Amino acid sequence: MPADGGPVTSIPEDRPALPSWREGDAKRSIVEFVRRASSEVPVEERVAVFDNDGTLWCEKPLPIQLDFILRRFVEMAEADPALRDRQPWKSAYERDYGWLDAALVEHYAGDDRNANVIAGGILAAHGGISVEEFEAGAGEFLRTAEHPTLGRAYLRCGYTPMVELLDYLSAHGFANYIVSGGGRDFMRPISQEVYGISRERVIGSAVALAYRGDESGGTIIRRPEADYLDDGDEKPVRIWNRTGRRPLLAAGNSNGDVPMLHFTQHADKPFLRLLVRHDDKDREFAYAAGAEEAFDEADRLGWTVVSMKDDWSTVFD
Amino acid sequence: MPADGGPVTSIPEDRPALPSWREGDAKRSIVEFVRRASSEVPVEERVAVFDNDGTLWCEKPLPIQLDFILRRFVEMAEADPALRDRQPWKSAYERDYGWLDAALVEHYAGDDRNANVIAGGILAAHGGISVEEFEAGAGEFLRTAEHPTLGRAYLRCGYTPMVELLDYLSAHGFANYIVSGGGRDFMRPISQEVYGISRERVIGSAVALAYRGDESGGTIIRRPEADYLDDGDEKPVRIWNRTGRRPLLAAGNSNGDVPMLHFTQHADKPFLRLLVRHDDKDREFAYAAGAEEAFDEADRLGWTVVSMKDDWSTVFD
Repeated sequence: MPADGGPVTSIPEDRPALPSWREGDAKRSIVEFVRRASSEVPVEERVAVFDNDGTLWCEKPLPIQLDFILRRFVEMAEADPALRDRQPWKSAYERDYGWLDAALVEHYAGDDRNANVIAGGILAAHGGISVEEFEAGAGEFLRTAEHPTLGRAYLRCGYTPMVELLDYLSAHGFANYIVSGGGRDFMRPISQEVYGISRERVIGSAVALAYRGDESGGTIIRRPEADYLDDGDEKPVRIWNRTGRRPLLAAGNSNGDVPMLHFTQHADKPFLRLLVRHDDKDREFAYAAGAEEAFDEADRLGWTVVSMKDDWSTVFD
Repeated sequence: MPADGGPVTSIPEDRPALPSWREGDAKRSIVEFVRRASSEVPVEERVAVFDNDGTLWCEKPLPIQLDFILRRFVEMAEADPALRDRQPWKSAYERDYGWLDAALVEHYAGDDRNANVIAGGILAAHGGISVEEFEAGAGEFLRTAEHPTLGRAYLRCGYTPMVELLDYLSAHGFANYIVSGGGRDFMRPISQEVYGISRERVIGSAVALAYRGDESGGTIIRRPEADYLDDGDEKPVRIWNRTGRRPLLAAGNSNGDVPMLHFTQHADKPFLRLLVRHDDKDREFAYAAGAEEAFDEADRLGWTVVSMKDDWSTVFD
């Protein structure tokens, strides 16, 4: 039985596991790891953690949540002309993404001045509304918007091989968690549908919340300030807070995932670290910016690199 | 199926539900609520939340975690004589609990000066150690220490009727969470054994944590500062953060549980708020301090009051 007491559905022997994974080191590492973990590790300890943007679904040409926020900036600028001359609203309103791109490049280079301007805008964009209202807006966006270049709905931008991996792990008693640098409450409305991950297993960045009681059950309000950014060293901390466990498997794709991958290590149990390499410009995007340290660590420590080009026969459903 | 995909074990028809609950309004309310929730609410929405101290287990003559901390204060004062003249170590070292009692009484009256002195001591008591070390110490204490007056191990200080209620809810597809003002990481080592609640479903107060990476997986360290105190208005916020849901059932026993009980309310689904009344001086303790507002709200809003004296045929196993 898995940690939560549910049944372990065996993968039928006559159906090949991980059908969208080509034969190779990555697939072999996964199958061997799952075989060992299933026999050696009590089911309640089988925890797997997954970064989201660029690991489970597409994050180019811009993270999906950023699209959601840019549309909100446009709405705000349409309602309040004074915002049209202020960043980050100006850039969104004029559909001039050069300033935003530059801010991201600066961020990766360690200069967070404009990233902080963006963060301030993001916090203001949904400050003061209830968690239910925010979630309704996020869910509506995710269920209706389309990816700008791939010609598919955002809800179909999950990587098929990774969804197969999530299913494969679930079938072997693993509890899968999303550990996203993006917003926890942004992903919750669709995590079950897209990944089979229930909302209580979504870990991500969070704004500060405040409860306001009233006679009809009260409301939890999003305050316009960050609670924490679930990235880098904060990822292991948030995994511990939520699960109380050190994972057996972690998958990421960028420098912000390095501590989580380091953390996924045991002296006496099997463990697996996966790093997704975006090297498939034909089927997805090819990029390495923001992942340099991660690939250095993968080389140095023998993490399992997953090449989208070589290891996956299909990228999208 | 429950939210986590596990099987719903039916309560056998030939075994009476809640055997340690006497017939009466409280038991009837529970059975009727569970009957309705099981037929009307999708299983993934069946979330129940329980305060711990005084709701699931005994909190008198002092909260069990306070006993753990006082023993640590004594250890610290034995190692460092300078602490023997400073509160809160002085009081612990001299086994003079008058100062501590007075601080608690002042706290309930709204004066937190000495409570803050205690809080500072608590944070210092286990600052700088890893989460694993803390948990080993808490688990060791909880598995070996005895209640000072009841003549039973702390691990057997859970209220039998409440453990039956947890089982009854689980059997009807509910996910039960502890939502304690006490420390999350203090309860996790024994929550499965005592309550059948897995560690990822323990919500409680938390200190700030920091990840320190190294070649062998790194360590999460307890920093000597609070992250949050899971009490009062913070309880609904922490329930949302962890579960992403508004509970159907909440149980508490004191003023710090009032917002959580308010929050447990739905326009279109069954819900139940339980308030445990400590009125059984023979089998447990009789006290009302710190619960005045809660009982006023129970009267005003029709929450279900559970009298330990009248509603429970057995208090302890």
